[in-house]
Amino acid sequence: MATIEDVARSAGVSISTVSNLLNGRVERMGRDTRTRVEQAIAALGFQPSRAARLLKTGHTPMLGLLVPSIANPLYGALARAIETAAQTNHRYRVVLGNTYRDPAQEASFFDDLLSHGVRGVILVSSLAEEEHLRTAIDRGLVAVSYDRRQSPGDTLRADHVSVDNVEAGRLAAAHLLGLGHRHLAFAMPSGMTTSRRAKIDGINAAVPRSGGTAEVVAGPAAHDYGDTDMAELGRDLAGEIARLRPRPTAVIAVNDLLAIGLIAGLRDHGLQVPADMSVVGFEDIFLSSLIRPTLTSVRFPIAEMAAVMVERLVQRLADSSIPVSEFLYQPALVARESSGPVAD
Amino acid sequence: MATIEDVARSAGVSISTVSNLLNGRVERMGRDTRTRVEQAIAALGFQPSRAARLLKTGHTPMLGLLVPSIANPLYGALARAIETAAQTNHRYRVVLGNTYRDPAQEASFFDDLLSHGVRGVILVSSLAEEEHLRTAIDRGLVAVSYDRRQSPGDTLRADHVSVDNVEAGRLAAAHLLGLGHRHLAFAMPSGMTTSRRAKIDGINAAVPRSGGTAEVVAGPAAHDYGDTDMAELGRDLAGEIARLRPRPTAVIAVNDLLAIGLIAGLRDHGLQVPADMSVVGFEDIFLSSLIRPTLTSVRFPIAEMAAVMVERLVQRLADSSIPVSEFLYQPALVARESSGPVAD
Repeated sequence: MATIEDVARSAGVSISTVSNLLNGRVERMGRDTRTRVEQAIAALGFQPSRAARLLKTGHTPMLGLLVPSIANPLYGALARAIETAAQTNHRYRVVLGNTYRDPAQEASFFDDLLSHGVRGVILVSSLAEEEHLRTAIDRGLVAVSYDRRQSPGDTLRADHVSVDNVEAGRLAAAHLLGLGHRHLAFAMPSGMTTSRRAKIDGINAAVPRSGGTAEVVAGPAAHDYGDTDMAELGRDLAGEIARLRPRPTAVIAVNDLLAIGLIAGLRDHGLQVPADMSVVGFEDIFLSSLIRPTLTSVRFPIAEMAAVMVERLVQRLADSSIPVSEFLYQPALVARESSGPVAD
Repeated sequence: MATIEDVARSAGVSISTVSNLLNGRVERMGRDTRTRVEQAIAALGFQPSRAARLLKTGHTPMLGLLVPSIANPLYGALARAIETAAQTNHRYRVVLGNTYRDPAQEASFFDDLLSHGVRGVILVSSLAEEEHLRTAIDRGLVAVSYDRRQSPGDTLRADHVSVDNVEAGRLAAAHLLGLGHRHLAFAMPSGMTTSRRAKIDGINAAVPRSGGTAEVVAGPAAHDYGDTDMAELGRDLAGEIARLRPRPTAVIAVNDLLAIGLIAGLRDHGLQVPADMSVVGFEDIFLSSLIRPTLTSVRFPIAEMAAVMVERLVQRLADSSIPVSEFLYQPALVARESSGPVAD
């Protein structure tokens, strides 16, 4: 592919003359020179727009999207909604990265975005530690954070878009308490994140102080989040839950994928859902209405959140001085077959 | 973020002087000038590497990945494997696009890649029509095509990586014939693609000419491939299959996601899998071993294919004259609960 240098050489002019033409600075350019450069651009098939724009504005119409793993159907659905909003509404393209919730992977992605001239990033992560994000923002990155709340007094200049996970946890627990359950478990991968903490807080707020329990059961950290590992972890945790005494009669899983694995695992241990154990997930991925038993889940408004994240990013790229905001969405319980009345 | 113009202005030099320094052409540059430019770069935090490399080499260490929809767990798994191979082995980043199998979307993505300086693309599509790809390749794009064979006599300069879909279809049909089934259906979205055609050919080759049938049942084209639509289509097609006479005793679904929807839909029509109807899918996504009944599927070696696609793309970006090749992978049948002996 032709470069700006090829064009300059072919037209017999300097690179800055080509650059001047590309950027519309043609007042002092002779007609002959201009014609020669234009002919060289056409003859070589030089495509200057993005390169020129990158040099001129310091950024390119792309945004970065960091997810724990695109193989997780939740992040797949979110990525599709983000890519569609970015492309349809703003003609932005999306650079994708899997981070496996590793701060070093995230930091490396930020570096690459900046050196590629990509200045906006949507970060799907809920790592407690975020110094690497602060550093990238100081270097000019514009960020929207998904799935974590803004901390009080936080000076991080990033917008936050999330679901009210405390309310999500409360909804799941209240649904099960309404069905007569008193002994609940919360199943998740080991490693606390802000959104897991919030769900636990919501569950604990709903469970009555006397006569109720909510046990947190955490498994070994998955090594490649979101693919088989999340479901396999659910399958593994089923055995641990089956051995708890008093045995819980209902399990709240950190997400639907873990719930799907959990149902398979409970079956391996001879426990039927919902007759022996109720199961509730979060996110309401499309698979939740297809598996059997269909899965009760707390739905997150993914499409709306995706659109707002893109909008906010584009706004802040245009004007970095707009105030940092937090967008908090409300979840909704969708009751299906996997949750039922507690057995007598 | 600082631009090359900011650096030039701050150092009191021309843009081409900054460009010369960035590209190592410093022989004729005075020591003072060089120091001033270097100080301006440091003071402004200018990050030149990718911009300079783009102008110098005409491409940037990114590759494009076009999928019908990233919300389809198959493409999510493939995208994860591709992104990991690109990043780990070559430090390439991945620009993602959803095409919904629309040639206009594909063409627009190619245009954007070229104007962003991205010269390599992995195209997951099996559109019969590929003139838009030919045009993009003529303009300098390097492409690897997934899931379609190279046509005999094809002059398209793209490598092809695919599964032997004829063999995949044959494996699925032979498995069911071995269980005593003679009346099969093949369920797919409407719209013929090269890989669907190949699966049908494989099924037809296996079904005996006398005493066997293989009916193709196609549903209305999904509007956003790969998300709920593929599964919902399976659910919809169940009714049509239940009404066929002679009613098939086994269904081969074009992919696991459609198979999962199909099993849910057959249940809606009072048909149990596998007692009343066997179901086989393709791809062996991780969900297939988690749902109940677990799904018999023809496995595709996704990780190996992803690694080869990235390797091939990087090789051809370095040397576009290497011969065009076809890489054909063999599938394997994984028998699970959803397929059983034909009922008497």
